[in-house]
Amino acid sequence: MIAKGSEESTVFAPIFNKQGLIPAIVIDARDGAVLMLAYMNDEALRLTMETGEAHFWSRSRNELWRKGAVSGDSQRVLSLFTDCDQDAILLKVEPQGSGNACHTGRKSCFYRRLTGKAQLELI
Amino acid sequence: MIAKGSEESTVFAPIFNKQGLIPAIVIDARDGAVLMLAYMNDEALRLTMETGEAHFWSRSRNELWRKGAVSGDSQRVLSLFTDCDQDAILLKVEPQGSGNACHTGRKSCFYRRLTGKAQLELI
Repeated sequence: MIAKGSEESTVFAPIFNKQGLIPAIVIDARDGAVLMLAYMNDEALRLTMETGEAHFWSRSRNELWRKGAVSGDSQRVLSLFTDCDQDAILLKVEPQGSGNACHTGRKSCFYRRLTGKAQLELI
Repeated sequence: MIAKGSEESTVFAPIFNKQGLIPAIVIDARDGAVLMLAYMNDEALRLTMETGEAHFWSRSRNELWRKGAVSGDSQRVLSLFTDCDQDAILLKVEPQGSGNACHTGRKSCFYRRLTGKAQLELI
């Protein structure tokens, strides 16, 4: 349960899960499009806040990851939001480099739409 | 690592985490605004697909939850997307009832912006 009043608190107190991670939705400041969902540990969050560049925790590589460190497609953070129970983050970013967030070379990671029971359409 | 080619697959094969959940970002079809982040188990996903109404798994109440069952603020799902590694869902919805997604009575759960090191501003 959420402690009464915590939804109105103006103290940033992010809640990390048992793996020490918090999910971060990344949206494009230019058009509001959802670009990706990634995870932050406390260090990634701290570095994001300190540098203004999006940092995440890579669960597949098990390492801290500055978005764009290899690809050049970094993300400049314009605003950071948290939700009512402070267990999710929303980043409004200005994509750098190619402007694409997805490692497949697409702008957004959400490029497949469900069209049937188990059928996806590439958009 | 992601199996080569799986990013281009048109077979919907969502990957649930160890708790049997997959995160779902919910956006408003009218303006693209991010409304909330919630979690689905396989049954919530199946019911969402079958009924066209957003269903989630409540981690705090430990139960299946049809959004709006109590509040009336249900969400009609217009499109469902998955991401490059199919471990996240994006729902484009038409909010019903009051049109608010957040239990605090706000349109979006992301109503607090970080303004300092640990300071939030209600927007």
